[in-house]
Amino acid sequence: MLDSIPSFSRLVAEMSKLPGIGRKTAARLVFHMLKQPVSEAEALAAAIVELKQRVVLCSRCFGLTEDDPCELCRDPSRDEHLLCIVEQPGDMIAIERSRSFRGRYHVLHGALSPLDGVGPEDLKVAQLEKRLENEPIREVVVATNFSVEGEATAHFLADLIKAHGIRVTRLAYGIPMGSDLEFVDEATVNRAVSGRRDL
Amino acid sequence: MLDSIPSFSRLVAEMSKLPGIGRKTAARLVFHMLKQPVSEAEALAAAIVELKQRVVLCSRCFGLTEDDPCELCRDPSRDEHLLCIVEQPGDMIAIERSRSFRGRYHVLHGALSPLDGVGPEDLKVAQLEKRLENEPIREVVVATNFSVEGEATAHFLADLIKAHGIRVTRLAYGIPMGSDLEFVDEATVNRAVSGRRDL
Repeated sequence: MLDSIPSFSRLVAEMSKLPGIGRKTAARLVFHMLKQPVSEAEALAAAIVELKQRVVLCSRCFGLTEDDPCELCRDPSRDEHLLCIVEQPGDMIAIERSRSFRGRYHVLHGALSPLDGVGPEDLKVAQLEKRLENEPIREVVVATNFSVEGEATAHFLADLIKAHGIRVTRLAYGIPMGSDLEFVDEATVNRAVSGRRDL
Repeated sequence: MLDSIPSFSRLVAEMSKLPGIGRKTAARLVFHMLKQPVSEAEALAAAIVELKQRVVLCSRCFGLTEDDPCELCRDPSRDEHLLCIVEQPGDMIAIERSRSFRGRYHVLHGALSPLDGVGPEDLKVAQLEKRLENEPIREVVVATNFSVEGEATAHFLADLIKAHGIRVTRLAYGIPMGSDLEFVDEATVNRAVSGRRDL
């Protein structure tokens, strides 16, 4: 009978494409939207369209921003001698939330994963090297995830950065192994930043 | 730093309003949307707007439909002597999926709940009485949920329907107590429909 309500089936199908949302959860969300005022649903739809229209990657750090370069790259009070490398924009947000880092960032948009065919050319590594050459960076904090791929990426980057005569540090262990930085609590991220060690 | 990406924060806030979606899950979904092609996000947004524009309640059974009256109410092959009462449109869909019922439906849009101030006037009860008077109904299957409110509603409706000299049945126990019909597996719903008993 859902065939006779194509707009219902279509939204369930679209919602099911989101990670962690199965068909039953999607149906529950769609039933909820049906009960909400039209204005609520329109606000959600508009927010999705706006996100895609407005958010771009910063051409310098590759973090998320609505204005390029991003607020952080434009901020003269940030320490330009200190660079923090993260896998994803969400990791950058997690570190900012911990208020423990006053330097700049570089977002790789992934981690090395030979099994999945992800090499340095698939990440923002060439752009990183350019920054190492052109910016007065004295220390790079490698804040890739504490997973197999994140650790491998950290070691790969450490060699590359040391070749430029720049000090390389890694966030202190204290963050549980195998976890995603983005979802670690602020106090733990803070402790890991202050306890960073030479690589 | 999220203050500098208002469209990100706004979508996270909108997604967090959905049931079972907290801020962290919302953020995860929004990061996912940022990685998807614009067309995917636009399809989702369009599907939300379309849902609200197209789906209306059938003026006869109060189920979901894009054309009023709904396909089911218009179908001459459905048994007009048999009426099934459910709490929500999703329950109607669950019973249709079980292919065990060939009559018509009436959606209450809720259940009696004196503690929450939900009385018969807040449900489609007056509309049900009108149908009992005007349609050639011989049996009403009360398929409200097997929760406290659903059972209370079933007993309230049983008295009302019997006063019209119409037979009242209830879905067979077999459906676990306290569960929502919408999410019960098809085989169990099927068995419950065939084993319905007099009330």
